[in-house]
Amino acid sequence: MKIGLDVMGGDFAPKNEVLGAIEALPELQSGSELVLFGDETQIKAVCDEKGFNASGFQIVHTTEIIGMLDHPAKAFSQKPNSSMVTGFKYLSSGLIDGFASPGNTGAMMAGIMYTVKTIEGILRPCISCFYPVINGRWGLLLDVGLNADCKPENLYQYAILGSLFAKGTLGEENPRVALLNIGEEATKGNIVAKAAHELMKNTKEFNFVGNIEGNELMTGEKADVVVCDGFVGNVALKMAEGFYRLAGMQGIKTDFFDKLNYESHGGTPVLGVNAPVMIGHGSSSPKAIKNMILNTEKTISAKMLDRVKDIFKNSKIQ
Amino acid sequence: MKIGLDVMGGDFAPKNEVLGAIEALPELQSGSELVLFGDETQIKAVCDEKGFNASGFQIVHTTEIIGMLDHPAKAFSQKPNSSMVTGFKYLSSGLIDGFASPGNTGAMMAGIMYTVKTIEGILRPCISCFYPVINGRWGLLLDVGLNADCKPENLYQYAILGSLFAKGTLGEENPRVALLNIGEEATKGNIVAKAAHELMKNTKEFNFVGNIEGNELMTGEKADVVVCDGFVGNVALKMAEGFYRLAGMQGIKTDFFDKLNYESHGGTPVLGVNAPVMIGHGSSSPKAIKNMILNTEKTISAKMLDRVKDIFKNSKIQ
Repeated sequence: MKIGLDVMGGDFAPKNEVLGAIEALPELQSGSELVLFGDETQIKAVCDEKGFNASGFQIVHTTEIIGMLDHPAKAFSQKPNSSMVTGFKYLSSGLIDGFASPGNTGAMMAGIMYTVKTIEGILRPCISCFYPVINGRWGLLLDVGLNADCKPENLYQYAILGSLFAKGTLGEENPRVALLNIGEEATKGNIVAKAAHELMKNTKEFNFVGNIEGNELMTGEKADVVVCDGFVGNVALKMAEGFYRLAGMQGIKTDFFDKLNYESHGGTPVLGVNAPVMIGHGSSSPKAIKNMILNTEKTISAKMLDRVKDIFKNSKIQ
Repeated sequence: MKIGLDVMGGDFAPKNEVLGAIEALPELQSGSELVLFGDETQIKAVCDEKGFNASGFQIVHTTEIIGMLDHPAKAFSQKPNSSMVTGFKYLSSGLIDGFASPGNTGAMMAGIMYTVKTIEGILRPCISCFYPVINGRWGLLLDVGLNADCKPENLYQYAILGSLFAKGTLGEENPRVALLNIGEEATKGNIVAKAAHELMKNTKEFNFVGNIEGNELMTGEKADVVVCDGFVGNVALKMAEGFYRLAGMQGIKTDFFDKLNYESHGGTPVLGVNAPVMIGHGSSSPKAIKNMILNTEKTISAKMLDRVKDIFKNSKIQ
C-alpha cells in the first residue's frame, strides 16, 4: 500500500515530518511505501543531514504551502500546487491509499469536502482518538473536535463509525459502545445526550451499553467505544494529554501515562469519509509523525470503507 | 457560626455523616458549632459506639428521610419533618449559617428554590468545585453539573460568581477567569462558548483572560477560575476524579493526585443562592463528610453574599 504524507504543513516542517518518515520506514509492513508531498530539495537536505538515502521514499515535488493562518477553503482553491492539495489529488485518484498531514485542520477538512467527500448517508464526519485503558488495551473516543455542536443523529452515526473502526483496528469483535454523559440513567444529561440515548437504546446497529461517566472512561470496565460531541470530546482528550504532562511534572513515568502522550498516536483518523485521512498536531515531533504514519497504515489495513458504505446505505438514521 | 448537616440523606446514613461530624469538630474555628439534623437515637448510637459525647453537637430531631429515589420536588413538599426540609427551615430562618447534605441533589435544589431562593438577578445557580493546581494552589471550576444546557448569559454570571468565590475562599485578589474551550482563539468552540467569549471579552466585571483548553486546566498557568456548562464541567470533574483512581491502580500516590480525590473537599458549594449550601456525594465517606463541613465553614466565613447581591443588582447581564 502507498501511504501519503504532507511534509510541509506542520509548525516544524519539513524537518520533523521527514525525520518521522525516516523513523517509520523500518517499522512498516513489507509492501508498504511512503509517498512524501513537499519541496524535494528540502526533503533531500533533511535526509542528507541524517545520512539517509532519500530514494527510500517516493517524493512528489510541490511548490506551495498551506500555512496554519491560511483561510482553509480559500487556501485549498488558491494553492493547487501545495503539498496538501497535491496529496488529496493523489488520494482521490487512487495513487495513494491514505493521506496524513499535521497541517491546517480546516484546510484538511476542505480538502476532504472538495475531493474524496463524505460517505453517502453520513451527515458529518468526525475525528477519533485511541485512549489507553488501565488493563493495557485501548479504547476509542469520538468526536474529539470536529463538530463542536452535534445533533443526536450525529452521535448515533459516530457510534456506528466508532464500532466499525474499533473492530477493524483494535480487533474487538463486538465493541461495547457507550455515550459519554453525566449520569448513568437515561434521563441524565443535556438535551442532545438525552435524545441520543433515546435513539441508541434499542438499536441493533451497534452494541449500545448505555451511558458512561468521565471517571469510567479509562478503566475500560464498561465500554470500548465512547461517543460524545466534539466539544466535550476535545476537552476530555486534552485533559488526558494534560495528565501525561502533570504526571511528568511530578517525576512520574508509567506505561499508562506514556500512552496519554499525543505522540503515542500522532494523528486522529477522520471517520466517515471515502478514504483514509489522518490529521496530526501542528507541532508534531518526529515521534508523533512516525506514529501517525503507522496509524495511517493500520487504518488502511482495516479496510473498513466498503463495510461502512454498505451500512450507511441502509441505516435508518440519516 | 452554626453549620447545619443533614445526617440522614446519604447512602450510608447516619453512620458516615456522624463519624465525619465527630472528625470535623476539633478542626473547626473556635465559635463554630455543628447542628445535626436527623434521628436523635441513631445519632447518639453512633456517638456512643465511638465513645464520643453527643452533647458536642446540637441535635435537631427529625422523623422523616428524603431518599435518593424520592421525586425531588414532591419529596420536599410531602416530607416536612425530614432532616433536609428541617435543615432548610433553620437555614432560611437564620438559625444556622450554612447547610450541607450528601442527600438527593434534586431535593436539595428544590429546597433552595422553596426556601432561601436564588439571589435576585441570577438566572441559574450553579455548583462549583476546587481542583488542585500542580504548583500547590487550588483553582475553581464551575458549573460542574447543575445546568447541563447553559446559555452564554449563564456562563457570564458563573464567571462573576466564581471570581467572587475564589476571592473569598482562595484569597485570590483579582482571580484570572477563563472560559473552558477547544482552542485559544475567540472564534473557537461551540455556539454557546463563542457567544460567551463575545460577552466576556471586554467586561470590567471580572478579570477575563480568554479561553483555556483541557490540558491547561491544572497547570494553573493561565487561570484561577474556569467556567463552562454543567455537562462539560461534570465530565472534566469526573475525569479528574478518575485519574486519582487510575494513579492508585498503578500504585502511585502523590499529594497532587490525592487532592483529585473527591474526599479532599467532600462537597460542592451551590453558588448564586441566598445562603451557603453545600451538596456532597451520596456515598460520602466520613473523611468526605468532615471536609464538606470544613468547606461549609470556609464558605460561610467568606461572607460573600452581600457583595454578590450588590453586584447582581447592577450587573448588565441578567
